[in-house]
Amino acid sequence: MKVAVIGTTGYGGIELLRIIHNHPVFNIQSIHSTKGELPIWQEYPHLYHINNQILEEIIPEKIAENADIVFFATPSGVSSQLASQFAEFNLKVIDLSGDLRLKNQENYKKWYKHDPAPQQLIKAVYGLTEWNRDQIEKAEWISNPGCYSTASLLGLAPIVKEKWVVPSSVIIDAKSGTSGAGRKPTRMNMHAEMAENFRIYKVNEHQHIPEIEQQLLAWNEDIQPITFSTHLLPIARGIMATIYVQLEKEKTLSEIHELYQHYYENAPFVRILPQGHYPAVKEVAGSNYCDIGMHLDERTGRLTIVSVIDNLMKGAAGQAIQNANIMNGLDEKAGLDFIPMYP
Amino acid sequence: MKVAVIGTTGYGGIELLRIIHNHPVFNIQSIHSTKGELPIWQEYPHLYHINNQILEEIIPEKIAENADIVFFATPSGVSSQLASQFAEFNLKVIDLSGDLRLKNQENYKKWYKHDPAPQQLIKAVYGLTEWNRDQIEKAEWISNPGCYSTASLLGLAPIVKEKWVVPSSVIIDAKSGTSGAGRKPTRMNMHAEMAENFRIYKVNEHQHIPEIEQQLLAWNEDIQPITFSTHLLPIARGIMATIYVQLEKEKTLSEIHELYQHYYENAPFVRILPQGHYPAVKEVAGSNYCDIGMHLDERTGRLTIVSVIDNLMKGAAGQAIQNANIMNGLDEKAGLDFIPMYP
Amino acid sequence: MKVAVIGTTGYGGIELLRIIHNHPVFNIQSIHSTKGELPIWQEYPHLYHINNQILEEIIPEKIAENADIVFFATPSGVSSQLASQFAEFNLKVIDLSGDLRLKNQENYKKWYKHDPAPQQLIKAVYGLTEWNRDQIEKAEWISNPGCYSTASLLGLAPIVKEKWVVPSSVIIDAKSGTSGAGRKPTRMNMHAEMAENFRIYKVNEHQHIPEIEQQLLAWNEDIQPITFSTHLLPIARGIMATIYVQLEKEKTLSEIHELYQHYYENAPFVRILPQGHYPAVKEVAGSNYCDIGMHLDERTGRLTIVSVIDNLMKGAAGQAIQNANIMNGLDEKAGLDFIPMYP
Amino acid sequence: MKVAVIGTTGYGGIELLRIIHNHPVFNIQSIHSTKGELPIWQEYPHLYHINNQILEEIIPEKIAENADIVFFATPSGVSSQLASQFAEFNLKVIDLSGDLRLKNQENYKKWYKHDPAPQQLIKAVYGLTEWNRDQIEKAEWISNPGCYSTASLLGLAPIVKEKWVVPSSVIIDAKSGTSGAGRKPTRMNMHAEMAENFRIYKVNEHQHIPEIEQQLLAWNEDIQPITFSTHLLPIARGIMATIYVQLEKEKTLSEIHELYQHYYENAPFVRILPQGHYPAVKEVAGSNYCDIGMHLDERTGRLTIVSVIDNLMKGAAGQAIQNANIMNGLDEKAGLDFIPMYP
Repeated sequence: MKVAVIGTTGYGGIELLRIIHNHPVFNIQSIHSTKGELPIWQEYPHLYHINNQILEEIIPEKIAENADIVFFATPSGVSSQLASQFAEFNLKVIDLSGDLRLKNQENYKKWYKHDPAPQQLIKAVYGLTEWNRDQIEKAEWISNPGCYSTASLLGLAPIVKEKWVVPSSVIIDAKSGTSGAGRKPTRMNMHAEMAENFRIYKVNEHQHIPEIEQQLLAWNEDIQPITFSTHLLPIARGIMATIYVQLEKEKTLSEIHELYQHYYENAPFVRILPQGHYPAVKEVAGSNYCDIGMHLDERTGRLTIVSVIDNLMKGAAGQAIQNANIMNGLDEKAGLDFIPMYP
Repeated sequence: MKVAVIGTTGYGGIELLRIIHNHPVFNIQSIHSTKGELPIWQEYPHLYHINNQILEEIIPEKIAENADIVFFATPSGVSSQLASQFAEFNLKVIDLSGDLRLKNQENYKKWYKHDPAPQQLIKAVYGLTEWNRDQIEKAEWISNPGCYSTASLLGLAPIVKEKWVVPSSVIIDAKSGTSGAGRKPTRMNMHAEMAENFRIYKVNEHQHIPEIEQQLLAWNEDIQPITFSTHLLPIARGIMATIYVQLEKEKTLSEIHELYQHYYENAPFVRILPQGHYPAVKEVAGSNYCDIGMHLDERTGRLTIVSVIDNLMKGAAGQAIQNANIMNGLDEKAGLDFIPMYP
Repeated sequence: MKVAVIGTTGYGGIELLRIIHNHPVFNIQSIHSTKGELPIWQEYPHLYHINNQILEEIIPEKIAENADIVFFATPSGVSSQLASQFAEFNLKVIDLSGDLRLKNQENYKKWYKHDPAPQQLIKAVYGLTEWNRDQIEKAEWISNPGCYSTASLLGLAPIVKEKWVVPSSVIIDAKSGTSGAGRKPTRMNMHAEMAENFRIYKVNEHQHIPEIEQQLLAWNEDIQPITFSTHLLPIARGIMATIYVQLEKEKTLSEIHELYQHYYENAPFVRILPQGHYPAVKEVAGSNYCDIGMHLDERTGRLTIVSVIDNLMKGAAGQAIQNANIMNGLDEKAGLDFIPMYP
Repeated sequence: MKVAVIGTTGYGGIELLRIIHNHPVFNIQSIHSTKGELPIWQEYPHLYHINNQILEEIIPEKIAENADIVFFATPSGVSSQLASQFAEFNLKVIDLSGDLRLKNQENYKKWYKHDPAPQQLIKAVYGLTEWNRDQIEKAEWISNPGCYSTASLLGLAPIVKEKWVVPSSVIIDAKSGTSGAGRKPTRMNMHAEMAENFRIYKVNEHQHIPEIEQQLLAWNEDIQPITFSTHLLPIARGIMATIYVQLEKEKTLSEIHELYQHYYENAPFVRILPQGHYPAVKEVAGSNYCDIGMHLDERTGRLTIVSVIDNLMKGAAGQAIQNANIMNGLDEKAGLDFIPMYP
């Protein structure tokens, strides 16, 4: 199957190339960017001799003619405008940006400060693979989840769905590597500023909040607004969400653990760690795994859930491929069955 | 004034040497360790030509004869045993370990898994400088607070004391650099394991929990057990505590901000950042500052307090010197008035 | 084909598991260690749910019965002793340690400070793939090159072989990530000691010196002793060798560049970068590539050659698999054709 | 004494503020930048509550009226233009940029690609403190050495001056932290690009080459062009220069060691490490020390000299203050006598 990647020069786009290079069915047909026609290896020298493709202009007709699947790895605000031009073609589309995630246009406007995508586009299926498989199988358009959202939602899903938590008690303390901010140089993502540093940003103001809440509400309509903090780690890749919830029902850690194992029984990329074990971001680096550990404090009745992913993999390109696999009737692990890079 | 440092070869001990080198009144009289007699620079080559002292045996009588102040920078479980031998002398003692912090011996046993110090010793004044100045002024023995405890307590103090928070709502998500684990090589603190990594450990099981609760209860007897997570950052120095509390009383961020400014008005090392600003660990690196920022989420009524320190300074040696200054009638900033090292 | 890995719990061994997981022909038959029988994921939690194998005792007969290929990822001094026990079996053996590299037993003794391997074993073929393909094809036993040696020799080979350099002028300034020192915790490889640090060690005393010289002399008998420095980088993976040589013959950079391109024309893992481009260690991370760039200074007639590899891949497990492929008549890229992980 | 800092918002400028804060004689009178009037803490939040000064316009008359000493911490190409406007005033000036270093205007043009400073200005004394004390004492204008130049020249001085080295044999393999590139965000100095990375740049093309050669020639007119490589380390601060020279005269390591000790006997900031010891960048972090170790390889007759500094201290602001001390008849250690920050 032939794949076109639009917005190839961001970290998400380049990670798509890395995965597809070893995919048994997908092949890169063309790569696109607004940067002008230059070989991709000039932007990313690690691709020298491996990928000799030239970045091409974005001409929807031409792309539609040649590709079976299109990935948008473009920034929010750009993605939906480009996507609109592809609406008429008979193509499978996966958008990695935030543009098609929020089903309420007002919400998008408020949190993203851009004009929202047209109603027709935001019907795209939300690609949280483990929880939306049936819809993804039949989908033509997928809106791929945000990185923080993926880590948070996979960590919360079972217990929220079962209504075992106090609906107003959800607190997510999230930490991300610096690749999450993209490849545009800013003072905040300079090496000299982030080396030996750790900072908090966008406290309760991150645009993934409405996305997380939208999904939590879909699972459990009682869920109240969440508290959500984002921090910047001095690493390139990786997200950890440390999640705190108050239990509504009296449950033991073993019961909760079983619940998670049950729900994720058939999810090859979600690993529920044994009791007493906790995840570390490096243990999923470069892979599509989401590792989840948890601790129940008997003194407080509060459950701590720890969920880690590689933000560029399960948090972006990896999940996008996982979704593309399912949309196309392939094994969801196709091209993704590799071991995290450790150390 | 003549200072002896016992347990000099740990990171806390070595940081004491760094500070005292520029202290206007204190002078290093002798340095001690169980490592045997060798020049300190052989353990810490950065001291070559600066400090030519030899590590000496720990002979209480001799130390008591020559020094005015003794710092214990020894590990928990060791500190109290050594300290016992100094009890009879007329010396000012500051213990940086956890051994004298918990006033309840059972609590110590439970969390530290060592035999507790004798009752007489745990009468040592708890050296959370900003909140215990009066007692510190008169103290002979100081138990210096833990690093996580300092960041957490300074961030929580005003609002807990005022009873503005729901007593059962305190959640602390704490992150520390690797120097916090000391200089003993272990797999967990190897560079290759921590580079590009971030991990959670001792979830709700860290020995600073009872220390924090003991102090919170001293301020507000209604406080319930806290939820407390500790994470390891891939940096050498720095702690951030991201603290979540539910407000009991309806307050605006401005009111809370004023409360903090009021309480810390005369605290030269606590900086309450302007509204909308949040701290970063590198912004206090090498200094004795504790920076505090906060955000009130109107959607949830929850307050997020962010508190950062350098774990070896305000979290250990810096606060120890600050306490020693006060015990000895000096300006509390003596030897500590320097600017964080940035970048 | 069935593979046994002996010494699985080191970083080299674990990297073998990562590669073989996706190898089209090789399968892990058994994993071995002296640590006792425990699941490998308990030593390396990133393997949880991926590799459920148990570490087994090292019983040569049993291994020989079940496996087609044996990799030794054991430390120097241990490897040759274990290997001796496998000499009688009809097995393909690849030793990643330094034990079988030096063909002169006295040299081994001098640089490694261990007893040398028996003469019979050190006949193992030196597995510098790109330069020893013919012998490797027919080999039963391979001695896999050292990490520094691989980066240095691939960078020097063409110009040394052609005798374009002054034989006494070879200087190698090498830098390695901390995984090169293995997984045994020591003070030098602690995170708090290496974070924001960079140090030089074993100046002109590294055990890869005789290995490099042995091979350079095989190419060009005039080569004189080299100058060789090793430095520790605050990263987990990656080696750069910055090599300085004086040109004997007057050559242009273009001529040299062509020479390199010519020699490495059929070497899929050696990338000669375009003139004016230089390699970076992250551009080969997790891959088997060796990237080489060079600069000729007309002011001095000196050539600077820059060679980078991932020390655990082309510097250890990757090259071992590449050799195993060739020994077994497979495409040398089998299981190794993936893109570096960037960023 | 009153100090004005021009170009305060760069890393060199901010480091001047850090030092002067504890200087016994110098006081910051005013800080200047072209960024417009804003409090310095808004650019550098770590200064909040410590430095409440406002960045001011650069009005030479006004500055000259109020200050005794002016530091230029402005970029090359900007510095000399600003400096020109101060030429007529009776002020002590220290320029941290490269603009006044090269005494040959053509050389400046060639390496810096800017218009050179007027002849009158480049008479400024070259402030390599340890080797130019006499001139610095009497100087009005100082051109402060480059960071790479300082590490390299201090490492080479004794042996070059004594003519113990083959004049054409000097090779410097230099490595720097990312703060050396300044605070302007670029792709190359992004955290996600540099984390777990190490790269070489400007091979034989760095603008410090003519500066180093100019000084080497001043010591020894036979010195030939040097080979000089610069690498980027994934740390914020620190430079190591690994220097290779061929000995002309047969000397033992002890003789060389004694020579260095002799020359630097009265240099409080140069530490000649004992034989067998080598420096590490973290062992000088935040301090004004230059640590030097060396190894003589008897197999090759080549000497390896290792020299480390903190690029923002001895490589910029620290040496600038050291020079200002000497110009003003103060102890050269004034304000600089503090211990490196370790770990």
